[in-house]
Amino acid sequence: MRQPLNFWIVGGDLRQATLAKALAEDGHTVHTYALDQGVDPALADDNLEAICEADCVVLPLPALDRDGINAPLSQRRLSLQELLAAPRPGQLLCAGMAPPLLKEAAQAAGLSLTDYFAREELTVANAVPTSEGAIQIAMEELPITLHSARVLVVGYGRLGKVLARQLRGLGARVTVAARSCTDLAWAQVWSYGVERSDQLSGWLCSYDLVINTVPAPILGREELSDLKPGCLVIDLASKPGGVDLAAAAEMGVKVIWALSLPGKVAPVTAALAIKAALYNILTELGV
Amino acid sequence: MRQPLNFWIVGGDLRQATLAKALAEDGHTVHTYALDQGVDPALADDNLEAICEADCVVLPLPALDRDGINAPLSQRRLSLQELLAAPRPGQLLCAGMAPPLLKEAAQAAGLSLTDYFAREELTVANAVPTSEGAIQIAMEELPITLHSARVLVVGYGRLGKVLARQLRGLGARVTVAARSCTDLAWAQVWSYGVERSDQLSGWLCSYDLVINTVPAPILGREELSDLKPGCLVIDLASKPGGVDLAAAAEMGVKVIWALSLPGKVAPVTAALAIKAALYNILTELGV
Amino acid sequence: MRQPLNFWIVGGDLRQATLAKALAEDGHTVHTYALDQGVDPALADDNLEAICEADCVVLPLPALDRDGINAPLSQRRLSLQELLAAPRPGQLLCAGMAPPLLKEAAQAAGLSLTDYFAREELTVANAVPTSEGAIQIAMEELPITLHSARVLVVGYGRLGKVLARQLRGLGARVTVAARSCTDLAWAQVWSYGVERSDQLSGWLCSYDLVINTVPAPILGREELSDLKPGCLVIDLASKPGGVDLAAAAEMGVKVIWALSLPGKVAPVTAALAIKAALYNILTELGV
Amino acid sequence: MRQPLNFWIVGGDLRQATLAKALAEDGHTVHTYALDQGVDPALADDNLEAICEADCVVLPLPALDRDGINAPLSQRRLSLQELLAAPRPGQLLCAGMAPPLLKEAAQAAGLSLTDYFAREELTVANAVPTSEGAIQIAMEELPITLHSARVLVVGYGRLGKVLARQLRGLGARVTVAARSCTDLAWAQVWSYGVERSDQLSGWLCSYDLVINTVPAPILGREELSDLKPGCLVIDLASKPGGVDLAAAAEMGVKVIWALSLPGKVAPVTAALAIKAALYNILTELGV
Repeated sequence: MRQPLNFWIVGGDLRQATLAKALAEDGHTVHTYALDQGVDPALADDNLEAICEADCVVLPLPALDRDGINAPLSQRRLSLQELLAAPRPGQLLCAGMAPPLLKEAAQAAGLSLTDYFAREELTVANAVPTSEGAIQIAMEELPITLHSARVLVVGYGRLGKVLARQLRGLGARVTVAARSCTDLAWAQVWSYGVERSDQLSGWLCSYDLVINTVPAPILGREELSDLKPGCLVIDLASKPGGVDLAAAAEMGVKVIWALSLPGKVAPVTAALAIKAALYNILTELGV
Repeated sequence: MRQPLNFWIVGGDLRQATLAKALAEDGHTVHTYALDQGVDPALADDNLEAICEADCVVLPLPALDRDGINAPLSQRRLSLQELLAAPRPGQLLCAGMAPPLLKEAAQAAGLSLTDYFAREELTVANAVPTSEGAIQIAMEELPITLHSARVLVVGYGRLGKVLARQLRGLGARVTVAARSCTDLAWAQVWSYGVERSDQLSGWLCSYDLVINTVPAPILGREELSDLKPGCLVIDLASKPGGVDLAAAAEMGVKVIWALSLPGKVAPVTAALAIKAALYNILTELGV
Repeated sequence: MRQPLNFWIVGGDLRQATLAKALAEDGHTVHTYALDQGVDPALADDNLEAICEADCVVLPLPALDRDGINAPLSQRRLSLQELLAAPRPGQLLCAGMAPPLLKEAAQAAGLSLTDYFAREELTVANAVPTSEGAIQIAMEELPITLHSARVLVVGYGRLGKVLARQLRGLGARVTVAARSCTDLAWAQVWSYGVERSDQLSGWLCSYDLVINTVPAPILGREELSDLKPGCLVIDLASKPGGVDLAAAAEMGVKVIWALSLPGKVAPVTAALAIKAALYNILTELGV
Repeated sequence: MRQPLNFWIVGGDLRQATLAKALAEDGHTVHTYALDQGVDPALADDNLEAICEADCVVLPLPALDRDGINAPLSQRRLSLQELLAAPRPGQLLCAGMAPPLLKEAAQAAGLSLTDYFAREELTVANAVPTSEGAIQIAMEELPITLHSARVLVVGYGRLGKVLARQLRGLGARVTVAARSCTDLAWAQVWSYGVERSDQLSGWLCSYDLVINTVPAPILGREELSDLKPGCLVIDLASKPGGVDLAAAAEMGVKVIWALSLPGKVAPVTAALAIKAALYNILTELGV
């Protein structure tokens, strides 16, 4: 980013606070609102008046909760209407996981809205803290080391790729379950064991740890009954998840369904990945 | 191990319990004493009478506490005298971290004592759970991922080697500090950054995490003042450790001094490493 | 493959010979034609009569040369017309790099033609021998080890991914040049240095080895003039290649343009990858 | 090296030439003698008169051949007597693989002789080009990729460690054969398959490549008869080697006995490793 810009960081958690700090360190002018804790008071504004001078207004990830703008670090409540009334038409608004409601309201207000969470490079970057969060959980839960442990990673998308590599980096014996010929070919190129994710039943008894990344019914009653006693299951798939939780509870299989890990386990890293995505958006828009 | 032996597992924590189970699964006859919780009641003996038939008596790691045999999972107290009175002269006793007191008493009782904790291959194997324990702590404490983090590993002995590799396996940027030309040459062969561990002052400001493995004064006031704010220090060195804790507290540097990690973070893995060492001892003794 | 099939392997080089052998070892009936050397004479047929019983006829990679079927290991010449006259309509024909001419003629003959070289999983698998071939060339040409060498891989498609990983596996310091934000994000996740492949000029002076995988003008006169003396350039891009060869020759930059490496450096591995692709084709067709 | 020194580089091959150039680039005064080709004529001296001003005289690796100083790039012949007559008593002489004859003569001449080839860090550094040389040979000889190949590395000293890691870096399936419990424990920590090197017979039939690093009779008639057809054997052990060459020839097993690889495959890298060792020697001597 060659020339300094004017950023408004509105609402959010530690990630927005870190983002504000990092943008300021890069030389930009930064204002924050509804982000009281964790930011330099010198950056905090008391009202939204000057937001109309912003080159880019950044809403958090997720952008909204049921009270309006998602602002867990602030006492303030900021409704969507209130926020959208402040900027000039044509200003750039960036938000994470913007729901249709927000998109429509932004359009009605004449604002240009970009969802940074839809950027492929951010999804890739977020795979790293998600993977480390899963590894941390496994380390905390298992009485064995991940080194030498037999681990099945179900799904070989972005998250599956990072997980498989980090687990092997620790010395785990990693098998990847996937469906497409191409994914299976890649898993073989990287020397993982391979299984068909649609034919897992009967091939699950040797694992110490199974990590699912696919939001589809992968581990049902039949598959769960195959697991060896003490095998830990971590489900990283977004809702509805990939594990039959009721069956698992009944059968005594320990399942941890872990969502939204980046903001929880590595908020600073997650914030820097958002910053990189914002910069790419601005470059592409010619700002 | 070709032929089944008779093992007595006396005292200890989850590692001894796991050891008992694993030996039984290998086909050996196993008796336990003073290890009430966590073992199959069928293996537990009420008294030491039949210990004189043992091919190998295994004491825990560490073997003794101030009450006698270290037996945290049992209500029983077992004094050293009581234990040593039970076996026949000439029987084999294996213990972990046997103090001089135990060695002398065993010799006086005519028992053959071997300290399995002194086995090089066990020290190597224990480096893995120690390294993973340190990584778990770092993940829990840091607001960034270890991936891309700048990490300094001080000392390039067994533990330093495993730590450096596992950290890089997660994607960390690892620098190794060592003293000998040979250690530094190895660190370069494995593509780590290198520093002289006796000249760290002035070269510490870029690290997010410093892990010390050397039981010598490595991080004193001067070195600690070099660290950047938020840098985490994990000291894995046995007493007296390698960090000036008083100076660190004064300067607000967070230091975690973590000892005896294998038994805490991965008791099952630690137990299997002890089993492998016992088997090597028995093979070498021709038992 | 559950049930044995009848394969005809027609023409080709060592890969077709290896394929014939491997299919026979898998329990299939195998006939070869126009593949005299390097195959078990028991498999070789003297004429094409029985080809009408084949479940699958396999033509080589590439399928045709200017004399007809590409058959370098045979004295025989086999024209396309001659070949296509032999099978029954409806039979399955698999060929590598089938030109439009072959597709049209097969269709006219009522044959079902599949180009196995178009299978994504084969392209992935072929990246491995291509990468190793490039590494072998670099080892033969350079007076330094690849370990510690500074290497630029241009392009981060299938081949770029494998090359970058194998080079780092040897200890090279690898930088990846790519164009899309996503590719650059992935290269950062895997801890490579990154450059923009469309802005290389001015950033090339530190490399010992540059390997191009992009079939577009990447290294022109300006970029070549940036290279340090002795830097080796290997171009793996298919025609028209990515290097200005005339400029390189003039400037004394050594460029090796290496094509079709899999069949040359690892014909057995290449053949097994073709076999796997054939099996996937047959499974999908329900044969 | 803080202050410039005066080096004389006498005799040798491309490594000495590279060493001369690299020392000059580091700012030292460099003279060469009996090293005509491949060095900047400005560095070359016509006689040894000024050698008495040298801070360090460097002889090649190996230092002597049967004609005197080993000087393959020069028309000159330089006898040991001639050389040793030139310096002043007390001057420092560094040589590689200095035979007793040289040591005695140097002592008689009052010169301080250090054998840089005896430096542990040089042996470590040389393991890298030796390993890459072996990998290059395997790539040239085998019709399969090293990726996915089953490779046995016999011996887990310096060279075995580097070989195992580089081979796995390429994607090979590596097994390490060693003898001591400690070496086997390390091989397990790094996730290699393990075998006992003194019990190889009967466990050799699955390998595509066997690389020996142990100068002892490892692969005799019995072991060789276990190898599968087409398995390549590379022997890197110094004389007398580890393979029964007569038996291998008789049985049709291809064996390549490759010695002195660093100077052949990567003379520049080898020279820089010698330079690093020289600097360590000078630092320790306080020069």
